[in-house]
Amino acid sequence: MVEINGERLLGDLRTLRSMGATGTGVVRPALSEIDMTARRWLVERYHAAGLEARIDGVGNVLGRSANPGPALLLGSHSDTQPTGGWLDGALGVIYALEVVRALAEDPATKHLAVDAISWQDEESRFYGCLGSRSFCGDFSAEAEAGLADKDGVAFSDALEQAGLAGVPRLRAADYNYLGFLEAHIEQGPHLESHGLRIGIVETIVGLGGMVFTFTGQQNHAGTTMMAGRKDAATALYALAHAINEEFPKVAGARSVWTMGRAVLTPGAPSIVPGHAELELQYRDADMAVLDQFETAAHRLVDEINRRGGATVEAKPSRVRIAPAHMDWGFQKHLAAAAEQHAPGNWVAMPSGAFHDAGVVCAAMPCAMLFIPSIGGVSHDFAEDSHDEDIILGCQVLATGAASILTAAPT
Amino acid sequence: MVEINGERLLGDLRTLRSMGATGTGVVRPALSEIDMTARRWLVERYHAAGLEARIDGVGNVLGRSANPGPALLLGSHSDTQPTGGWLDGALGVIYALEVVRALAEDPATKHLAVDAISWQDEESRFYGCLGSRSFCGDFSAEAEAGLADKDGVAFSDALEQAGLAGVPRLRAADYNYLGFLEAHIEQGPHLESHGLRIGIVETIVGLGGMVFTFTGQQNHAGTTMMAGRKDAATALYALAHAINEEFPKVAGARSVWTMGRAVLTPGAPSIVPGHAELELQYRDADMAVLDQFETAAHRLVDEINRRGGATVEAKPSRVRIAPAHMDWGFQKHLAAAAEQHAPGNWVAMPSGAFHDAGVVCAAMPCAMLFIPSIGGVSHDFAEDSHDEDIILGCQVLATGAASILTAAPT
Repeated sequence: MVEINGERLLGDLRTLRSMGATGTGVVRPALSEIDMTARRWLVERYHAAGLEARIDGVGNVLGRSANPGPALLLGSHSDTQPTGGWLDGALGVIYALEVVRALAEDPATKHLAVDAISWQDEESRFYGCLGSRSFCGDFSAEAEAGLADKDGVAFSDALEQAGLAGVPRLRAADYNYLGFLEAHIEQGPHLESHGLRIGIVETIVGLGGMVFTFTGQQNHAGTTMMAGRKDAATALYALAHAINEEFPKVAGARSVWTMGRAVLTPGAPSIVPGHAELELQYRDADMAVLDQFETAAHRLVDEINRRGGATVEAKPSRVRIAPAHMDWGFQKHLAAAAEQHAPGNWVAMPSGAFHDAGVVCAAMPCAMLFIPSIGGVSHDFAEDSHDEDIILGCQVLATGAASILTAAPT
Repeated sequence: MVEINGERLLGDLRTLRSMGATGTGVVRPALSEIDMTARRWLVERYHAAGLEARIDGVGNVLGRSANPGPALLLGSHSDTQPTGGWLDGALGVIYALEVVRALAEDPATKHLAVDAISWQDEESRFYGCLGSRSFCGDFSAEAEAGLADKDGVAFSDALEQAGLAGVPRLRAADYNYLGFLEAHIEQGPHLESHGLRIGIVETIVGLGGMVFTFTGQQNHAGTTMMAGRKDAATALYALAHAINEEFPKVAGARSVWTMGRAVLTPGAPSIVPGHAELELQYRDADMAVLDQFETAAHRLVDEINRRGGATVEAKPSRVRIAPAHMDWGFQKHLAAAAEQHAPGNWVAMPSGAFHDAGVVCAAMPCAMLFIPSIGGVSHDFAEDSHDEDIILGCQVLATGAASILTAAPT
């Protein structure tokens, strides 16, 4: 039975953590100098593990096995949020490296072909899941044209700076992968709060949303009587509150919705705002629930517009993602591995967060494995997981990957 | 009967408009280079009108009459909002200049003592009504220490730059003024929409407010189930909407309230906000109504806190202003002048906006006169008033000032 080396795994995770370390967290945004340093380090680690490694034209790092046969691709992303945790995607990247090494060390598995990858910019400095989208043909020239980060840094300049301008980009169509496995921290409290140690993802929940634009009349807050106002803020508060009151009536058991961005213009206490924007995002594993949220939102918008005062216009968010179903066969292999190493302590569950596997599953079968996040914290310097959970997760992934490859027709 | 010169008045208003002109508006923030240019120009105009003129240590421009007897002080402010209208305070500043000239030209009034002033920074680049506060002893060393504008420019550096460091500051206590008259555009639609041409201010409405701070738990918007959330935005929307539903029940006929500033942190669509701030401002001429608003706001805050989820804490706003009553005697003189020049076309009214007269009335009797704003627009490049209204307002002010001075015991 393939056995991973826990200390070696933790050692590499800690080395990667040191690149961009800030307090207990990590600041390693996509295509930054430290991100590229980490990616070049990863090339070296892939080489040392016997893989042929390269960085492609958007920064994806791919390590290819010398073994024949359709390979299984393992990995995640090593870029972080602007103030990110040390594990997040880094966990799955180093898991892939360790699984490659563990399989190569076991005479029973050393013939199996496992490639390792670190996708670029999952965290959306420039474009969410840019690396896996580029790989899967889902990063169009239109999306790329004029692309810049929130500080105005052009994607093209960042590529140039990283030495990637003109470097070829990898394409899934040029390979013949059996599928892709991604491990990740849960980023929520479900596993920990139920005393579970492994989650096998059934579905990456879909996501929809709307941007509401409120148009009123900017005015002096002292001299404009209430009856004469068209206050964009009043309409925003009314719509947001109505959504929070009405959505529970159409929600599923694990539906979530969030209005985390609201901007009043000009945003001064002495001025009746003439303009406002509110962003609504909702997620569910069931497309029908997403559709019901959209319908309810439009109905509430109509009610606000019938009231008079500021008017509101609803537009679908730029980002719309259908629920992504993980491969049933892969799930069974991972579940068997979880039951072997953590009997009775694993669960099949949806992923509330989006992941590269949600992109890659359009190009090949995918599956995902979660380990518990302490306190459910993620995208925060405080993010962490217990060492024993980190080690267990990698062992389950190794056993599952070996099982998938062994069962595959050659 | 004293008669103002309408063309001369409009000419000086247009010259002042040219300093900082931007499209149809004016950009002349307090202590900027163009503001100081305008103030030095005003010194010249005061001299030409026979006044002894100077700029004090905060930028107030005072022109003093050579005539004996307690003088009447007339004026307003020549600084503008970051994107201001051309009239606003400039109207009252040039009115004062024209009234001085008109009185001096009339043998029946040339002995009357009228001083003219342009206060500094009414528009709060550094501190609202800084000039009139400094004059009235209401600009403390504590308020001045470390004072900076919103871009971080230190007040002390701005004074140095303007050549005002170490220049003495004028104090009301060093003079023996009969009182202060301020003319201003209405900044609201009341006069225009009722076909009226002059407003005599009874009260400058008081202002109170609260800053609400919401504390929740920042979390991932996909993996944090609704039941486990402490969403600062949800609590903000609920409180703001409740205020808009409940305040009408305790409001007076001319009460206004505004929540024009709301900030979610971190303010991203994919993150449950852990922190939020909402600012509430309310105005009324009646202190009791302001107190009722405060009580109602505290009750609604308690209700939000009883619900669970994010908590909210209410603190009184830094700025709290009691309603300021204009002098009854001065009002009668101005009303008689209005009836003389615009019979049946004037009205006694509150001022919903705050003005320097609201500060100065703590040091001496004050009164205010409004002319109509086209469309009620103010603090905007589009702000404007009709020439005939501008001329009429100045005539009413001249007649009223002469009447007050003539009636005063010498």
